[in-house]
Amino acid sequence: MSGQNSDPMVELKRRAAEEAAAMVQDGMAVGLGTGSTAALMIDALGRRWADGLRFVGIPTSERSAEQARALGITLVDFSTHARLDLAIDGADEVERGSLDLIKGLGGALLREKIVAAAARRFVVIVDEGKLVDHLGSRSPVPVEVTPFGWESTARQLGELGARVALRIKRDGELFVTDGGNLILDCAFGPIEDPRALEAAIGDIVGVIESGLFVHRTSEVIVAGRQGLTRLVAA
Amino acid sequence: MSGQNSDPMVELKRRAAEEAAAMVQDGMAVGLGTGSTAALMIDALGRRWADGLRFVGIPTSERSAEQARALGITLVDFSTHARLDLAIDGADEVERGSLDLIKGLGGALLREKIVAAAARRFVVIVDEGKLVDHLGSRSPVPVEVTPFGWESTARQLGELGARVALRIKRDGELFVTDGGNLILDCAFGPIEDPRALEAAIGDIVGVIESGLFVHRTSEVIVAGRQGLTRLVAA
Repeated sequence: MSGQNSDPMVELKRRAAEEAAAMVQDGMAVGLGTGSTAALMIDALGRRWADGLRFVGIPTSERSAEQARALGITLVDFSTHARLDLAIDGADEVERGSLDLIKGLGGALLREKIVAAAARRFVVIVDEGKLVDHLGSRSPVPVEVTPFGWESTARQLGELGARVALRIKRDGELFVTDGGNLILDCAFGPIEDPRALEAAIGDIVGVIESGLFVHRTSEVIVAGRQGLTRLVAA
Repeated sequence: MSGQNSDPMVELKRRAAEEAAAMVQDGMAVGLGTGSTAALMIDALGRRWADGLRFVGIPTSERSAEQARALGITLVDFSTHARLDLAIDGADEVERGSLDLIKGLGGALLREKIVAAAARRFVVIVDEGKLVDHLGSRSPVPVEVTPFGWESTARQLGELGARVALRIKRDGELFVTDGGNLILDCAFGPIEDPRALEAAIGDIVGVIESGLFVHRTSEVIVAGRQGLTRLVAA
């Protein structure tokens, strides 16, 4: 094994992450995503910070907060910045055309969605393997639910047509989010109308938020074998 | 001061609570509400329990759990009972005709709504002072929100037309729900279309649940100066 550059796709994702990080300008308030691709982007921001760029970050997870803090990046919260200029994050699936997303397999979907909702521009970085014609083709929709009554919430999600699984960790313990909630992974298969499904899921009492991100994406930077592609919302 | 019966309205509410408690039958699974009126109902159930009635209760708060436990009532959770036969609770406002509600001034709105949603019949007990022609006339709509990014969530609730207040306790500390969340009390004034407002509030990322209960009420028992009235959903 040589260095981390041995996998050409990792190198391409690193370039995509750098392209996203290049969108940050002096003085901006920037949402910092969570996950392996977002970590590459935070690394790239750390290099720009070392070169003298100054901005403030709002992290979407404790993990991303630690990484950014270690790089010296100034972190703030919503008490001082209720609106962000830009948020950058990864995704689990991106629908071609609409740029709608499934996110949250990493477990930070609620904070990721709050940060995306507060941002004027929301930029997503993925490898080409995440592009699909219909959301749900490969990935379940993660749904964050309150622990109280999760069994009843799961039953109602099943009635929407999903195969529902309670997320557990590798050690067999329940997966608990930063907010103290549970995740139900809901396999719907290909989703015809993500907006309608997002609303139907949201109507279920006990649901805190779903990993469907509909009409939120400004731009997607795709790392592919042929290089980088930028997709802009229609 | 003589005994608690000195206030005729308390005595009428006690009779209403007993009428609601009389709807519980042997073997039922029953949601137990939260608040001063619900407490009268749990007391009435305790008397029926002492007389030999056997059922199981799912409480909507730690407070109601303690009260029921002290009366000997068997408590269960959603792991064994994903559907309830009946739930009984109070309300802060009841709209004449629709029987839609505002609930949650007591701070237990999420659990109360989960329990109401899981119940085949949802029965509400109020005094006549809670009846209004339009929800929102007197009471703000409590909205339970995730602590992360609450400032951004509050801004978006304001954009829906509400005067928004972060609930604090008498000692000046933040009010925190059983689920570890915050409450934003949103004064909308008279609400023309509760269903549309409930959906709009629910669409805001960071909102966990609102205290609007639309199309959920089966029956309302009203304690008034002239006696008890039963209102049934149209």
